Formats: sequence, structure tokens, C-alpha cells
Amino acid sequence: MKAVVYRGARHLGIEERDPEPPGRGQVRIAVAYTGICGTDLHIYHGDMDARVGASAIIGHEMSGRIAAVGEETTGWSVGQAVTVMPTRSCGRCAACRRGNSHICHAMNFLGIDSPGAMQSSWNVAADLVLPLPEELPLDHAALVEPVAVAVHDVRRGNVTADDQVVVVGGGPVGVLIAIVAKGRGARVLLVEPDPFRRAAASGMGIEAVDPGTTDVVALVDDRTEGAGADIAFEVSGSAAGVSTAVDVLTTRGRLVMVAIHPRPREVNLHRFFWRELELLGARLYQRDDMAEAIRLVASGAIPAGRLISRVEPVEAVTAAFTALEGGGGVLKVLLDWREDNR
Amino acid sequence: MKAVVYRGARHLGIEERDPEPPGRGQVRIAVAYTGICGTDLHIYHGDMDARVGASAIIGHEMSGRIAAVGEETTGWSVGQAVTVMPTRSCGRCAACRRGNSHICHAMNFLGIDSPGAMQSSWNVAADLVLPLPEELPLDHAALVEPVAVAVHDVRRGNVTADDQVVVVGGGPVGVLIAIVAKGRGARVLLVEPDPFRRAAASGMGIEAVDPGTTDVVALVDDRTEGAGADIAFEVSGSAAGVSTAVDVLTTRGRLVMVAIHPRPREVNLHRFFWRELELLGARLYQRDDMAEAIRLVASGAIPAGRLISRVEPVEAVTAAFTALEGGGGVLKVLLDWREDNR
Repeated sequence: MKAVVYRGARHLGIEERDPEPPGRGQVRIAVAYTGICGTDLHIYHGDMDARVGASAIIGHEMSGRIAAVGEETTGWSVGQAVTVMPTRSCGRCAACRRGNSHICHAMNFLGIDSPGAMQSSWNVAADLVLPLPEELPLDHAALVEPVAVAVHDVRRGNVTADDQVVVVGGGPVGVLIAIVAKGRGARVLLVEPDPFRRAAASGMGIEAVDPGTTDVVALVDDRTEGAGADIAFEVSGSAAGVSTAVDVLTTRGRLVMVAIHPRPREVNLHRFFWRELELLGARLYQRDDMAEAIRLVASGAIPAGRLISRVEPVEAVTAAFTALEGGGGVLKVLLDWREDNR
Repeated sequence: MKAVVYRGARHLGIEERDPEPPGRGQVRIAVAYTGICGTDLHIYHGDMDARVGASAIIGHEMSGRIAAVGEETTGWSVGQAVTVMPTRSCGRCAACRRGNSHICHAMNFLGIDSPGAMQSSWNVAADLVLPLPEELPLDHAALVEPVAVAVHDVRRGNVTADDQVVVVGGGPVGVLIAIVAKGRGARVLLVEPDPFRRAAASGMGIEAVDPGTTDVVALVDDRTEGAGADIAFEVSGSAAGVSTAVDVLTTRGRLVMVAIHPRPREVNLHRFFWRELELLGARLYQRDDMAEAIRLVASGAIPAGRLISRVEPVEAVTAAFTALEGGGGVLKVLLDWREDNR
């Protein structure tokens, strides 16, 4: 079996290993596809060395089939198509005790804190595995985890059919939020400076504007009889994005904070006060979000084929990471592990 | 009749005027007491000249008795004790159209945008007048409006008996929020650097700590088995206050933004993301909040006598404003208009 191993900043290795049988309560998954996430890029850049150990197997977006079933593991059969919810909560911390185990303070995140999906044979606790409909292509299924993020974000924003939504930032998560929000019937405007990403979003039926040439606040006001947007999603991670997301909102509008802002940002708190705005942090997903994501991908509501820009062989992993670093030109890049599982 | 008139920055005049009869739909109120609010201080400092006209009669915290009833005005009788909800919404703006008329975009705020309460005879639209219980002393009743602010803030934070609450800032509104939250059964900690304000809060049964000598986050963690506060109220208007209010919160905790921050503040948005925190702007009050405030003041739940530091004659208005400017040493200062109505 093969595995992609993080060896230090900007250094990924491909290792040959002997597959191990699944342990008690585990299944072994023959991995079909893995996606590369922004978090994987952060790891690659060395930004998460405090958390990611040396020789760690990374990756947490995936699809595959059950290859073996461990002892005391029931309900699974070899050949079954599956994906994995890569988060294990502790059950004891303050977040878990109060019903927020999905953002557990002592989270074991597979692919960060423990071995991840970028291996052709992956032994995983069976309670984290979710079955996939047989008709769902496995390359599309590798998008389930990022779609679950978008489902969680849209649920957090409580988007309904009456809403004007603005999504600031048109990377994969931003586009997915736009698609999921549109699926709920909302009117959606995506704000993205990169022309490739705008064109990609347009191809998926999402109206996308360039904040460099469009007065986004004026446009939204025009669309809403001067009211402003009901919900804004900040997915850009930029200072300008935060300002736009605050400025477009209507009275009592909601800003869902999806992006990671490593440093504090200046926020117009007076506007929060004046218009009684709301800011809601949103991170990861709950099991229901994963289940909904599977339904959305399987139903074709998520245009998976358009979101997947490239499928590369495992050997091209470093080139795939490098392509994603540029930001423009690609949305989702998958690694294909099937050769190793034939 | 007398009136306090704003003549420009740091210049208040007392004018003698002829009382006018109340117009159609109005009542004339013989004003008993008016409170001086932070907003009145802003006006006094010249910070609101764009909105407050020359020779404007300011003031919006008050109590009094009906002195005359205008034409086509029903339900009121001379001598009845009353207060006023000093906000008139337009009914047409985006906020009004969507059920948020209490923060109308074209608000007519009495005492800012139109003549206010600092006059011995005040003609007011009857639909903004609220009856007071006869047993409620009129000096205490002058606190109803700021209490309504606190009621609205606590309602916005959805404070319940299970909650650990932190109030950052121990001016009149902060202390009132602490009292109202405590009245809902919550455990409340007030954070205030000024020793006079801490002592005043303590005298009202509110635990108050000095952020200069107490590690507030550690204290709250200690009180909550490491979880953090459920709700924080930022009432200080300071950068340090914003940081404290964010840092004390538990996962999915709520920060209610009560203070005015004229300039953008640096906010730890990563923590909002990581812990799925919520920020909720809160401004003014709804009619229900005024009604609840009347009940709370009348029942003695609000220790009005302790909150009122001084009652001054109208002639001492400038001295009263100057005393409040210092911040320390006084909580609420009232002007007594009764001499002019005997």
C-alpha cells in the first residue's frame, strides 16, 4: 500500500507500507479518491507543525470501499461504498458536555491529529464511516466532506427561500455555500476577485461579481429595495472581505464567519450595534450535515463534475499541492488511489 | 416654563418659554424628573451636531404627570403619572418593513431629532406615553428608559437561570444589565476598573472585579469548570473590554454589543470561528421592554435609590453634566423640574 506522508514544510513523501488488518471496531477502506483541502495546504506550508507530527499521513476528504471488517464490527460488508467523518470528539470537554461535540476542544481530527485518508488502505473506526449510495460515483463522493462544511455553514446562517445571500470568497467552500444556499431557494451573489473562480461559479449557475469593478453594497441595495442582504458568508479570509460582509447586511442581518483569520481584524462594531447585526462563527459539521451532504452530492444538486478541476495520480501529489497554492486555475483537485487497490 | 437648550459644544442654556397647549393627539406632561444619559453627554460635547439642531431641547429619560390632554386624545387624564418612550419610527424603511421598527433607519428620537424631555411642560404624542403605577416614586420612574435598554440587551442575549454572565463595564447601563440578568437567575460577574463604580455595584449585590488586578478569564473558567461564560455584555466601549468579552466566552457563547465603538476595533475572529461564538448588536428597546422596565422599577427589583447618585435643580444642569463627564463618583444624576410645575 501507498501513503502520502508529511515530512516537514513543503516536503511530502510517498511511502510503500505493508497494510495492517483492521483493529477491533474498525474497517479497512480501500481508498478510491482523496481531495486536497485548504487545511492540507496549511499543513504542507508547515503552519500546523505543532499539531501534525513527523511522518504523519494527512488527508480527510475521501471516498472508497470497505476492504475488510475488523473484530466486533457489525453492519459493514466488503465492497460497500463509504466515506468518513474525520472528527472524533472527546466526550468530556466543555464543548462536548454542552452538546457541541462537533467542535470538541480536544478533537482528534483524522489527517491532522491521527493518520488520515491519503493512504490506499486506511483502517478507520467503523462509527466514523458513512455508507454511500451505490449510484454515487466515487470521485464525486470525495466532495462529501467539504459539502458538509457548506451545509453546516448554511444551516448556521438559517438561510431560507426569502433571503438575499452574499458569499464573499469564491474558493471551493465559498462556491459550495453558494450552491447549497441557492438550493434552499435563496437569491445568492458571490463576490470573488479571481476571474477563473468567477467563471467557474458562473458555469455552475452562481452569479459572481468582481469587487474590484462592482460596488457590491450598491448592487445588493439595488436588489433589495435598499434593505441589504439577510445573510453574508465571509469565506475570503481577507480584511476587505470582512468589511464587505458587514457592509452589505440589512438590519438584524447575519454574518457567518467561515474563513480563518489568523490575526485579529478590524471590525465595524458600531454597525453591529446600530443595525443589531449578528456574527456567527461556523466550523466543521455535525453528523446530520454529513448525511445531508451525501444526499446533495448523490442527487446531483452539487455539480461535482464541475467542481473537480483535476484528478491526479498519487505520484503527482506535490504537483497537485503546488497547483492549488496558486489559488487561481483550479477548484478541487483529487488524488486517485484506485491503481493501488486493483 | 423652563427648558434646557443645547447651544453648541459645552454650552447649555436655560430658557424661559411660554407653554403651548398640546396639539391634536398629544398630551402635555408636567415633567417631574429627567435623567442625564451618555447620549446627552455626547450631544453636550458637540459630537452629535450633525443631528442635533441649534437651540434643541435635549433629554429623553423622564417621569411626570399629565397636565393637559389635546384634541382627539383619549385614554388619558390630568394628574396621571407617566413616562415616555422617546422613539418614533417611520414605518416605511427597510428596518420597519421587516419588523425591526425599534431601530428604524429614519428614527425620530425625542431629545435628539425633535424636542426632548428637559422642559417643565412637554407636549408629546400620546401614543408614545406609558402610564406608571401610582405607587412608583417619580424619581425612580425617571430610570425606566435606561432600564428598558438593559431589559432589551438581556433579552437579546437570551439570559436564563443556568447562565454564567459577564458584564464588561460598570456604568449605569452595565450595572442595570447586571441587575436584570441576575433577576433572571443568572450568575453575574461585573468587570469595572473604577473603584467607585465597583463599590456602587457591590452595594447593589453585584459581584464586581477590577480587570487590573483580577485575571477575569481565569476566574470565569474557575467558576464554570473550565467552560467559560455563556453570555458577555460589552458595555465599556474600550478595546480591552472587547477582548475580555470575547476571551471569557464558552463554545457557542454570545457577546452582546451594547457599547458604542466609534472606530473599528480589532476582533479575534479566529476565536469566533473556532468556538462558533456569536456577536449580537443590541440597541434601544421595544415597547415590551419599556413595559417590563416599568414592572421592574415599580417592584423594587431595580434598586433605584442606589442608582440615583444626585438629584439637582434645573439651574445646576451644567454642573450636573460636568460631574458626569468625570465618570467616577456618580452613577445616575437627575434634574428636578417639580419647582416649575407647582
